[in-house]
Amino acid sequence: MKTNKELTLVAGGAGFIGSHLCRFLLDRGEQVVCLDNLQTSREANILSLEGESGFEFVEADIVDPLPASILRHAGRFTRIYNLACAASPELYQADPEHTMLTNVLGTDRLLRLAEQSGARFLLTSTSEVYGDPEMHPQRESYRGNVSCTGPRACYDEGKRAAEALTFDFLRTSRVDVRVARIFNTYGPQMRLDDGRVISNLICQALSGEPLTIYGDGTQTRSFCYVGDTVRGLWRLMESDLPEPQPINIGNPQELTINELVETLREMAGRPIEVCHRPLPTDDPRRRRPDITLAHELLGWKPTTPLREGLRTTLTWFGSELQRNRVSPLAESELEPARLMVAGKA
Amino acid sequence: MKTNKELTLVAGGAGFIGSHLCRFLLDRGEQVVCLDNLQTSREANILSLEGESGFEFVEADIVDPLPASILRHAGRFTRIYNLACAASPELYQADPEHTMLTNVLGTDRLLRLAEQSGARFLLTSTSEVYGDPEMHPQRESYRGNVSCTGPRACYDEGKRAAEALTFDFLRTSRVDVRVARIFNTYGPQMRLDDGRVISNLICQALSGEPLTIYGDGTQTRSFCYVGDTVRGLWRLMESDLPEPQPINIGNPQELTINELVETLREMAGRPIEVCHRPLPTDDPRRRRPDITLAHELLGWKPTTPLREGLRTTLTWFGSELQRNRVSPLAESELEPARLMVAGKA
Repeated sequence: MKTNKELTLVAGGAGFIGSHLCRFLLDRGEQVVCLDNLQTSREANILSLEGESGFEFVEADIVDPLPASILRHAGRFTRIYNLACAASPELYQADPEHTMLTNVLGTDRLLRLAEQSGARFLLTSTSEVYGDPEMHPQRESYRGNVSCTGPRACYDEGKRAAEALTFDFLRTSRVDVRVARIFNTYGPQMRLDDGRVISNLICQALSGEPLTIYGDGTQTRSFCYVGDTVRGLWRLMESDLPEPQPINIGNPQELTINELVETLREMAGRPIEVCHRPLPTDDPRRRRPDITLAHELLGWKPTTPLREGLRTTLTWFGSELQRNRVSPLAESELEPARLMVAGKA
Repeated sequence: MKTNKELTLVAGGAGFIGSHLCRFLLDRGEQVVCLDNLQTSREANILSLEGESGFEFVEADIVDPLPASILRHAGRFTRIYNLACAASPELYQADPEHTMLTNVLGTDRLLRLAEQSGARFLLTSTSEVYGDPEMHPQRESYRGNVSCTGPRACYDEGKRAAEALTFDFLRTSRVDVRVARIFNTYGPQMRLDDGRVISNLICQALSGEPLTIYGDGTQTRSFCYVGDTVRGLWRLMESDLPEPQPINIGNPQELTINELVETLREMAGRPIEVCHRPLPTDDPRRRRPDITLAHELLGWKPTTPLREGLRTTLTWFGSELQRNRVSPLAESELEPARLMVAGKA
């Protein structure tokens, strides 16, 4: 990081989506500073980036005052992406106070850095701002159905508050901002243990364990491949919008958890059992983005077919499980991969 | 404040409701520490309290780390009321970042103080968490209809986030908490210039100016006299609830702005003109609390009739306007009181 070139900051850059974004930006020739507290993200995600001359990693928590290693670049940041926050319910509920402060105080610190730098700021918000939606598919104008007192509120309300703060920096002419509402995303570099449906099911499939379905499996999700998500975030950051508004980034192909399980069973090419467990509190029944705005304003839509994305993800999970298998420390935590990917499209 | 007696902290204690609460608690024999940044509150509100031995005032902003003058009492607080935040749209929108941080970071600091002290904590939330409600009257279980990107979001979403944080401190067994959702409240010691409908209309009525109606005046509000509100807050603080939940504190008597204007015109006993202006963005159409929970769990309901509360308020506003009239500095800001209160119940 020796030149005086413009810099892009990616907060949460060692996380699942963040690390893909860092790779995407480096491949486009941008100089990237990755800020991450490694709370739920993994340094392994950025191992392949750390050798590159255009990449710098700073370990810090945005709940704390930003460190000198970030502030010294303040004049050079032209783009700041905020992807910093634990995103899976199990992980963000482990320390709900920290989750809330990451979203509100952390976002505030990054907005102030953007103001100081004259940088454009992009907040990654979430489909969780719609809560358990009563409108399908969810348009950006839908105000949501969120319990502000439940166990998911630290994340859902934290993100809603972060959106409010972000648009206030725009309204008061302090920072030029973008807000993406990301729906379920999957792909390589997800945490194996993030407790989310895709990673749970893939780990179970690869380990030969029964696939767990919470509730009756008729609840729906729409899964977007991470490569598509990252392209959408970048398009949003680089686009001029006719009016300030949040933009949904997700895949409108809605499928039930039962359908996802069937797809994985077919791809496995051999019988896998299924077991049922009760639905967690506040678990949304349906989720599907209306991406009309993203399509019209950014010319973006997802292009990776589900089976293709799942195959890439299964392959990566398989090698991760294998790698953990040969590591004596990890062996006790994860069952060895007993299943090879069978689907060939 | 020389004894080693237990202490009650009232953050926002120099504000409209806060100062009435301080008076109520002092009259009950509690020792009260009032913490306030005097941002939108008025030191005049606590002038009559400052001479009392059970009262201490600390000027500080809960967005900043709590000062030593508060922390030195940490072991003695048994009750912490958080009423700190600008509450009228004009005032809280003047610095939206500060409004958000007051609600989230400020509430977090007070919750940590409550944890350190072993104190019970009461958050004053707001009917604004229901946004522009699609359910009437509003029950506590209603999840609301709030725009998280609009100009009111700094307050509405800030309070929703504060509720989330408060219940998380309960869920993680850190603090015993209470959450009140306060609906429109009026009475002496409101700011004359808070921009809210009651103070606007009373100032206009007393000054002989036309009464301003935003929109067509068919939007409704329910106004609770401050004495009733304060009694409700105290009941909530001192009650054991069967399960943790927010409780509405407000007056279920719903009236249109047009009806309020008519009442004021009748009380004035002489003709007053009316003028119409456009409805502000995000202004809620209807507001009326369902206070079943407060009635059943706290044995509380408002008892002050509207005309009685309005008369007390008109009298106080009249004397404030008179006081400002004889102050040369204030004379230019406010029209002299030209109208005397006519109604006699």
